[in-house]
Amino acid sequence: MKKLEQLYEGKAKKVYATDDPNCVIVDYKDDATAFNGEKKGTIVGKGVINNRLTNHFMKMLEENGVPTHLVEEISDRETVVKKVEIIKLEVIIRNIAAGSFSKRFGVEEGTVLKQPSFEFSLKNDDLGDPLINDYHVLSIGVATQEEIDTIKAMAFKVNDLLKDYLKKFDIELVDFKLEFGKTNDGQIVLADEISPDTCRFWDVNTHEKLDKDRFRRDMGGEEHAYQEMLRRVIGQ
Amino acid sequence: MKKLEQLYEGKAKKVYATDDPNCVIVDYKDDATAFNGEKKGTIVGKGVINNRLTNHFMKMLEENGVPTHLVEEISDRETVVKKVEIIKLEVIIRNIAAGSFSKRFGVEEGTVLKQPSFEFSLKNDDLGDPLINDYHVLSIGVATQEEIDTIKAMAFKVNDLLKDYLKKFDIELVDFKLEFGKTNDGQIVLADEISPDTCRFWDVNTHEKLDKDRFRRDMGGEEHAYQEMLRRVIGQ
Repeated sequence: MKKLEQLYEGKAKKVYATDDPNCVIVDYKDDATAFNGEKKGTIVGKGVINNRLTNHFMKMLEENGVPTHLVEEISDRETVVKKVEIIKLEVIIRNIAAGSFSKRFGVEEGTVLKQPSFEFSLKNDDLGDPLINDYHVLSIGVATQEEIDTIKAMAFKVNDLLKDYLKKFDIELVDFKLEFGKTNDGQIVLADEISPDTCRFWDVNTHEKLDKDRFRRDMGGEEHAYQEMLRRVIGQ
Repeated sequence: MKKLEQLYEGKAKKVYATDDPNCVIVDYKDDATAFNGEKKGTIVGKGVINNRLTNHFMKMLEENGVPTHLVEEISDRETVVKKVEIIKLEVIIRNIAAGSFSKRFGVEEGTVLKQPSFEFSLKNDDLGDPLINDYHVLSIGVATQEEIDTIKAMAFKVNDLLKDYLKKFDIELVDFKLEFGKTNDGQIVLADEISPDTCRFWDVNTHEKLDKDRFRRDMGGEEHAYQEMLRRVIGQ
């Protein structure tokens, strides 16, 4: 497969065309951003780690019946994925209160939720990715009820699988963001990434943060945290 | 029934105890506020109009099977209502995009929604009444699934009834906020008010605003708008 022209550069990844119309190549960067791009920096080695962790998690999910965009890892930072049209809804599932959830609803960070919380936000940087509910989605036509149902079922399944999987490495899955896309043949698949950029991972015992919150909150140790996630999950 | 001590003073109403432990008296003020109390003013005659319109609408809803807190109007500004424990969720139903919905999702004001939109916000002034979805509500224990289902069914029924009722007076029901409460015997009833303070009413043909947006947006003519609503609906 040939890597062709760059199609898109996002905050953490570049996407390239290939000679296969159904595939693109994702190239993970070390650039880190937070607060809708207001804070910018670099986490050395992040691109390599996120590429490897994302593919590792997506493989595990595929094996357990969750369709993903993953095709093949081709280098440290590059992966071939199915070309998809991204659905303009970000999904966040939360098991433990943290971050914007804690601030928004006045719930202390670390509070275990009575049941997992699901939310959509409208994928729109200009509007600041606002929280949006199912009725809003249907009333303005962002997605259909069938698409909502499919995405919800897949997201909760990802939560169950990933939470259990990470427990083996003494990692608590606090919350995470998912994106979904539609392939050329209309299937909804899990897209984007699953990494310390898009999830909150805490050490089960110490609650040490092993994710991008170290960067967001100027805590330091972000390189170590990403490496530690790689070490625990993949063993390197 | 005896009016006893004041229990509570809100932004637009005072509430008094009575000698009946199951009833309180609501007293409507002319005070107007907007943007979570940041903007303050007076709309002369508003209290009288909101008292009369609220009771008129609640009577119509009761006759059509929606339980409300209404007991009896006892003066221009005062009404006996059932004592309830207010559920800490505000409900907003929207038929046409306007206000915060338009801003939040980038949908032009006046756009007719593909289907009515329902939303909860957490009733908490300190947090700015944030938007909250069903999963959030359950995950932090604000209400049960059964309560959510009851409130939703009642709110959509109010929308259907009120929208049709207002059409007779050439009034478009753009959106509205409802609050619900639990009576001493545990029944969920419609509480609070239904008035130009809590609804957006537009003239069907001209889209002239007949509600508190005239105050919020410094458009002038708020007294006239409230009087016009009273004139059209009750005929005075």
